Amino acid sequence: MNRVLVPSSPVGPLPSAWRECVGTGRMNLALRADYQESAALVQQEIGFRYVRGHGLLSDDLGVLRESQGVTRYTFTYVDQVVDSWLRIGLKPFLELGFMPSALASGNQTVFWWQGNVTPPRSHDDWAALVRAVLRHLIDRYGLEEVRTWPIEVWNEPNLTQFWQGADRAAYFRLYEATARAVKDVDASLQVGGPVLSPGADDWWAPFADFVASRDVPVDFVSRHAYSSGPAQHVPFGVYQTFEPPQALLDQFDAPRRHLAGTALAGLPVHISEFNTSYRPDNPIHDTAWNAAYLAPVLAGGGDLVDSFSYWTFCDVFEEENIPTSLFHGGFGLLTHRQVRKPTFHLYAFMARMGASVLARGDDHLVCRDDDGRVTVLAWQPLGGSDDGPYGSAPATHEVRLRIPVPSDVAVVRRSVSETEGNAWTAWRELGRPRNPSARVLDLLHDASVPALRHSALVAVDGHVDLDLVLGRHEVTLVELLPVTPDEHPGLDDARLLGQGVVG
Amino acid sequence: MNRVLVPSSPVGPLPSAWRECVGTGRMNLALRADYQESAALVQQEIGFRYVRGHGLLSDDLGVLRESQGVTRYTFTYVDQVVDSWLRIGLKPFLELGFMPSALASGNQTVFWWQGNVTPPRSHDDWAALVRAVLRHLIDRYGLEEVRTWPIEVWNEPNLTQFWQGADRAAYFRLYEATARAVKDVDASLQVGGPVLSPGADDWWAPFADFVASRDVPVDFVSRHAYSSGPAQHVPFGVYQTFEPPQALLDQFDAPRRHLAGTALAGLPVHISEFNTSYRPDNPIHDTAWNAAYLAPVLAGGGDLVDSFSYWTFCDVFEEENIPTSLFHGGFGLLTHRQVRKPTFHLYAFMARMGASVLARGDDHLVCRDDDGRVTVLAWQPLGGSDDGPYGSAPATHEVRLRIPVPSDVAVVRRSVSETEGNAWTAWRELGRPRNPSARVLDLLHDASVPALRHSALVAVDGHVDLDLVLGRHEVTLVELLPVTPDEHPGLDDARLLGQGVVG
Amino acid sequence: MNRVLVPSSPVGPLPSAWRECVGTGRMNLALRADYQESAALVQQEIGFRYVRGHGLLSDDLGVLRESQGVTRYTFTYVDQVVDSWLRIGLKPFLELGFMPSALASGNQTVFWWQGNVTPPRSHDDWAALVRAVLRHLIDRYGLEEVRTWPIEVWNEPNLTQFWQGADRAAYFRLYEATARAVKDVDASLQVGGPVLSPGADDWWAPFADFVASRDVPVDFVSRHAYSSGPAQHVPFGVYQTFEPPQALLDQFDAPRRHLAGTALAGLPVHISEFNTSYRPDNPIHDTAWNAAYLAPVLAGGGDLVDSFSYWTFCDVFEEENIPTSLFHGGFGLLTHRQVRKPTFHLYAFMARMGASVLARGDDHLVCRDDDGRVTVLAWQPLGGSDDGPYGSAPATHEVRLRIPVPSDVAVVRRSVSETEGNAWTAWRELGRPRNPSARVLDLLHDASVPALRHSALVAVDGHVDLDLVLGRHEVTLVELLPVTPDEHPGLDDARLLGQGVVG
Amino acid sequence: MNRVLVPSSPVGPLPSAWRECVGTGRMNLALRADYQESAALVQQEIGFRYVRGHGLLSDDLGVLRESQGVTRYTFTYVDQVVDSWLRIGLKPFLELGFMPSALASGNQTVFWWQGNVTPPRSHDDWAALVRAVLRHLIDRYGLEEVRTWPIEVWNEPNLTQFWQGADRAAYFRLYEATARAVKDVDASLQVGGPVLSPGADDWWAPFADFVASRDVPVDFVSRHAYSSGPAQHVPFGVYQTFEPPQALLDQFDAPRRHLAGTALAGLPVHISEFNTSYRPDNPIHDTAWNAAYLAPVLAGGGDLVDSFSYWTFCDVFEEENIPTSLFHGGFGLLTHRQVRKPTFHLYAFMARMGASVLARGDDHLVCRDDDGRVTVLAWQPLGGSDDGPYGSAPATHEVRLRIPVPSDVAVVRRSVSETEGNAWTAWRELGRPRNPSARVLDLLHDASVPALRHSALVAVDGHVDLDLVLGRHEVTLVELLPVTPDEHPGLDDARLLGQGVVG
Repeated sequence: MNRVLVPSSPVGPLPSAWRECVGTGRMNLALRADYQESAALVQQEIGFRYVRGHGLLSDDLGVLRESQGVTRYTFTYVDQVVDSWLRIGLKPFLELGFMPSALASGNQTVFWWQGNVTPPRSHDDWAALVRAVLRHLIDRYGLEEVRTWPIEVWNEPNLTQFWQGADRAAYFRLYEATARAVKDVDASLQVGGPVLSPGADDWWAPFADFVASRDVPVDFVSRHAYSSGPAQHVPFGVYQTFEPPQALLDQFDAPRRHLAGTALAGLPVHISEFNTSYRPDNPIHDTAWNAAYLAPVLAGGGDLVDSFSYWTFCDVFEEENIPTSLFHGGFGLLTHRQVRKPTFHLYAFMARMGASVLARGDDHLVCRDDDGRVTVLAWQPLGGSDDGPYGSAPATHEVRLRIPVPSDVAVVRRSVSETEGNAWTAWRELGRPRNPSARVLDLLHDASVPALRHSALVAVDGHVDLDLVLGRHEVTLVELLPVTPDEHPGLDDARLLGQGVVG
Repeated sequence: MNRVLVPSSPVGPLPSAWRECVGTGRMNLALRADYQESAALVQQEIGFRYVRGHGLLSDDLGVLRESQGVTRYTFTYVDQVVDSWLRIGLKPFLELGFMPSALASGNQTVFWWQGNVTPPRSHDDWAALVRAVLRHLIDRYGLEEVRTWPIEVWNEPNLTQFWQGADRAAYFRLYEATARAVKDVDASLQVGGPVLSPGADDWWAPFADFVASRDVPVDFVSRHAYSSGPAQHVPFGVYQTFEPPQALLDQFDAPRRHLAGTALAGLPVHISEFNTSYRPDNPIHDTAWNAAYLAPVLAGGGDLVDSFSYWTFCDVFEEENIPTSLFHGGFGLLTHRQVRKPTFHLYAFMARMGASVLARGDDHLVCRDDDGRVTVLAWQPLGGSDDGPYGSAPATHEVRLRIPVPSDVAVVRRSVSETEGNAWTAWRELGRPRNPSARVLDLLHDASVPALRHSALVAVDGHVDLDLVLGRHEVTLVELLPVTPDEHPGLDDARLLGQGVVG
Repeated sequence: MNRVLVPSSPVGPLPSAWRECVGTGRMNLALRADYQESAALVQQEIGFRYVRGHGLLSDDLGVLRESQGVTRYTFTYVDQVVDSWLRIGLKPFLELGFMPSALASGNQTVFWWQGNVTPPRSHDDWAALVRAVLRHLIDRYGLEEVRTWPIEVWNEPNLTQFWQGADRAAYFRLYEATARAVKDVDASLQVGGPVLSPGADDWWAPFADFVASRDVPVDFVSRHAYSSGPAQHVPFGVYQTFEPPQALLDQFDAPRRHLAGTALAGLPVHISEFNTSYRPDNPIHDTAWNAAYLAPVLAGGGDLVDSFSYWTFCDVFEEENIPTSLFHGGFGLLTHRQVRKPTFHLYAFMARMGASVLARGDDHLVCRDDDGRVTVLAWQPLGGSDDGPYGSAPATHEVRLRIPVPSDVAVVRRSVSETEGNAWTAWRELGRPRNPSARVLDLLHDASVPALRHSALVAVDGHVDLDLVLGRHEVTLVELLPVTPDEHPGLDDARLLGQGVVG
Repeated sequence: MNRVLVPSSPVGPLPSAWRECVGTGRMNLALRADYQESAALVQQEIGFRYVRGHGLLSDDLGVLRESQGVTRYTFTYVDQVVDSWLRIGLKPFLELGFMPSALASGNQTVFWWQGNVTPPRSHDDWAALVRAVLRHLIDRYGLEEVRTWPIEVWNEPNLTQFWQGADRAAYFRLYEATARAVKDVDASLQVGGPVLSPGADDWWAPFADFVASRDVPVDFVSRHAYSSGPAQHVPFGVYQTFEPPQALLDQFDAPRRHLAGTALAGLPVHISEFNTSYRPDNPIHDTAWNAAYLAPVLAGGGDLVDSFSYWTFCDVFEEENIPTSLFHGGFGLLTHRQVRKPTFHLYAFMARMGASVLARGDDHLVCRDDDGRVTVLAWQPLGGSDDGPYGSAPATHEVRLRIPVPSDVAVVRRSVSETEGNAWTAWRELGRPRNPSARVLDLLHDASVPALRHSALVAVDGHVDLDLVLGRHEVTLVELLPVTPDEHPGLDDARLLGQGVVG
């Protein structure tokens, strides 16, 4: 194979879209201690900017309360949640939904936790609720802050599970009422939609027509992206087929393609959810395959959209009821008890990448910082289910790079694969315990740490050759640190046992 | 008024029944960060031994799960809850209930969070569930530990809200099935009931007859105690009348009176819930009156029962939906955001009392430690509603004691009353903000600290005279610390401005 | 007495000079856990911007090391110290001194910890050391950061204890060599002197002449201020007389007066040390008198200088050997074990003052924030020793203010006096234990909290009347918070015992 | 090579002598934040029982203070140190020394920090000091606690550096005065000596004779053990030759051999210091060689003595002045900034060993816990300098074991060698930075984590075969955990990409 010659001048900055936002279980879960511990860990090692989830207006957050004929907008829990997010550097990406029972026109619910998905009985009451929530948030956090929070109207209204009848006209009415209520509070607040699921690109043109014709405010558009096929159910889990990673990038790009030439062309595009599988009980989320598969998506998605939000940062999540096993195929980057999954490390590796892109290929991304540190993210390229069954990828994959450096370098490599940095593999060896003991949890945490190797490379003619052999489903981060040795006159490792030349 | 002459020899140890157990919102809430923060604070400043609440078997803890025909006992959340309790020194006082939907024979529920209160469809499946839970707990925490956890069967089966039809025979069947299942797991586990609400003393004799006639295991008996009348509803709250404190002590004593002469005579008696009001939305819980009213109950209850468990330690509680205001009349010793209420301080004062009782009266309890420290808990005596409207207690109350001491003493007094150590009063002055800002929360925390005064008393003839003037609804703790001054030759406070005799 | 009519428009912003800088024990002590705990507490409740102390170049920080003929500039400890300061928001106010033994021309030392106070054997070697230190700091912390750190040359060279022979010419030579070395590293670094003790105003003119005539860089000037007389020794302590507080303000103002008309006129002036007594063993530092005495200095000093730095923030300090008693008259705002002294609270009160000054008088300072919060700092005015012996101040002092407010207000008052917020008084009552037990330390911490009182005032014609009666040596902070009550329809405190009109 | 057949029955418990005690820099350093952070880490991952160091009575702890003719025993710092140790589960192993200046008969000092090593001017004053210290400790911590603290008299009196003239008779006088003073305070306190350095076995007989003839109390005996030759100096460091590990075990055993037949036979023996090199600036302490060399000493030392105390737990240590580089050959298990050295991991591995010994050999120790977990500690056997220069050990070493197990096992292996779990190697690759940046420190912490590998082994005929290939200077810990798989009906990893048989 040929060696890739990495150029010495950057092609541009590394876009931050990959870390702009991350998904979360419903807002009520943000009150939990394990959730907050998980979020703090994610922020420390990755550092997302926004967080988005369902349930801001659902009954279990208690925003709309009535008693003895008195209506009261209540923020007992909302304040706790938003306080806790801001404390660790996360801003809310607000999703307005689902419907409070007191306002709902019907009883249809979605998820185990029963989010009501029917239109409001009164659009005026809904608008009053929206205004009350935003005014409270501005009172508490300041307009300057709140105007940086995108406000999405509802979730996947094109699906009957999420919006009664998937009634497009009804959604447009809701969108209009909501967007106008938002702007009533302050014109600088950012509102957007239509938060489509995959497979609903036929909504773009009507949406653009509707808002243009009625001059309805739209500050951004959003949709979701998943690459999995139908669920094949087993007890407490599902299996699914997968399209290749490019399918996700194609979904990312769809809004821009479909809105070209409309009044909405050029608006910010947010992929406000994405993942491989859209199921919270598909074990694929726990694997190294998931990380290697998504590596080119994270490396390239920033060319297409303003943000793409991994659904979700942790397994504290109850859409399909309460998980019955530590590893259960949850969406999370972290399991309950904060065990890092391979995809967590993909994100943590991205967070260590240099600021400027030197090179990008099918199996690598090379960046550099101003201080000369070069970072290489490399992965085994994977297609989807057409490649064969799980584990059929080649046992190794080679990446060979020639990298420009200003001096000799220290080389630090971290690896996640089927055998390294992989707590799921260790968990299987330990008998797949559903309720692991403290001792097993400790082992899993240890097993989740990426393997680390380090060495030194001597620069020749201003470059070093980096030859990487990756294991199955491996994602690896290599850092090259320019070295200027300190002086230690007299030091001589050969004399450590007292047997060199005596001083 | 006469001076009380405190004797110099103890009449016995101060019983620990007041701190044996404390109540909690349903177990699912124990997963929350604010709950855990509150519990840690309570343990640090008070230190209860057990914690008891509802919902161990309810759907939102997920113990009984089914999927594709497979049943799975799940401990994802139970383990987190019990781990978190044990970490701060709290043992579970297990209450077996309510009914998992998958086992329920009907749809009747209690509370906003919908605990199912119908009998099991199958007593065998119920028994299997009980055995599975206990076996898991023993696997995880060890038999030696779990056998110290009392296991209560259901909650207030004498009320139709809590047990379909308040069907006594059905409860006895459930009790028998449960108690035998518990003993199947290990004969040393402690099981008990019938967890009666106030007003159900007619159940004692039949219960004793039933278990005696069928040789059903019973290791302890339990009931609840409240002294409030019917709810007078206002929006988001209620008012109620109250009997005098002695009514609570009479309720404590009822099991022993009613079981005298039966096979259950002599068993441990647990008051597994008590408070003034049984409503989570009666503002009385937030007041200094509540503390002063309960002071003689805490001081004297240990003569009557093995434990009496304040319902509950914090306002993280949802039986009547999500609270709409920081102060809302919740049961908690602490509000959301961990503001200490006056009754919190009553408990914290009790936690500072000496080990041996020297004297006890209508308005005082005097204890002493082996190291000579004397502690005085004093309070303004209150009756119930017959005393007059709130605030009609005399503005002051005097307590005069002659206390034996081994030397001069330092005197440290802490006070909670309508004006001191009273965040609720400060909150009213601040306009009763339902969603206080961070600044106001800080002020409330500061206002919640008991007023502290200190002085020195010179011993005369082996005693000091302590004259206390209490304010309205005051509870006060006075510590007398024997002092042996250290030597500081040359030190002379008169010279602090350099103007005494020059050395 | 007349009521002060506080105007409704600010006279200007409250200067920040009082919190610009604080003093510290020698830099080696900054490695200690209790020091770091104290500093964190001070930063949390007060929030200084810079910290200044001795010993950067002394042997116990190890900067200049030699072995087998090899010289090595070492930053093992310096990095730890500066890292720890920056972590809590403190920047170094660098003092270059004292002399490393390896560079010293003599053996004269100052303090128990033996700082060498002799000139360098070689000004070239000294300059090399200065450059090495600054280059390392810039490497580690960045030039942008380091250029905000004032760099002072030596300490009190006008005293023979601190500079061999108090040799002015030798100091000027050292100043020139140092200032040029600093600017060699980067012209934007700020260097200054001559760091005079009180009583050396005759140095200003020669210093100005010297630097002007030789074009020596000077970016700021600095001196120290103390108002105490000679030490009257007792075992492990001293007493001293004191001039009135105005004497400190006069010392603050001296540099500007003496440099008027010179080339140094208009330069920033830093009082890089000040306190009542210059002794670390005068019990006056532990008293409420010290706080009340300094209140007008903190309130007014910012009119005169750019910073005035309280010497020191905590009692971790060893100039007169290791303290033998918890309270021992140390300089600190905090004792060992982090007990807050009255003067700590004076600073914490200042940190809560509003941003704009409404009024200032002999016994009060009134400020307001943009959000309408009004703050009043009031104190009993004290002279120095001429007022009489300690404790001879009047038992009370009244302050009466008419304050403009936009609405009714909540009033929160915090007090420190001879009896309140005064751990030193409690310590004396407890027998002045030199090595207090954990229990006594807990009591002292509790006793150190300012007494808090709260109430509500109704606005009449746009103002409220605030009548304050202060105790002996009291400093008090009053906050007036505008109140807009939340609605709670149905709530009626008269019904708390269930006896009002039934709803 | 042959396979070792590990028996299925234990030969006895694993002695705890290896963790009974650990050494520390002088007590004053225990006040430091980095010291306390290091100690907490060591206790968390290893868990020693006692800690021993110099300087309890030296001036920089301030125990003996005088002022204006008043003598004061001071515990300002001692209390802080002992409080901090006990808080993390460390008890003091008290060493009485060195001499306070105020009591010293001469000026001779040892170390950069100048411990005075001369006899007391007055044995009465010395005895008074000893009694005052012990009485204070008993007052503060209780007699029950203090009587568990061994009390050693002085340090290495057989060396002229540590005891003026290495005067044996003078030491015996000091020992007698001290031991009697200790017993004056309480007969149950444990006192011992003579704390010999290596090469002083000729002191045993005279010591036994002396104490026997005068009936002087002795509760234990102690000595030190080191296996290095003379220092070969280079700038800021030394090199030395080493005897084989057996030399250390021989030194451990010497007291028992020499005291056989004397009155002191049978007393507890403490090796109150040991290490390879006795120099705090020999880089050997930072290497994997040091860990592999000491592995058989830790595995076997407990057969010979009651404790052997590694000198020291961290590099916060100043006997040879302030270290000039992160890695500098310090004694510590941890560097400054808490980087774990290979020998740290040897101890951490020992802390994970099972309770009972199954087998021990030249290159392995096999233990088992009651719950069936088997642990294997294996190492490359090393001699001393006679083996050849550093790095001349074979590149690999094989250990083959047949281990009895109750079921299939999960296998978790952790390795430390020249390339794995070795921050020193990474530091060299990074250019040996003396003052590493925050980024480099992070890398070193990551590089210090032992490499972890995991797999599963199927039991055949009640055993598994464990074949280990060790790298150069490797120490490895292998845990075998019996596995009982949980049931997950329907789960099939082959279907992860959705391509198995559809359910």
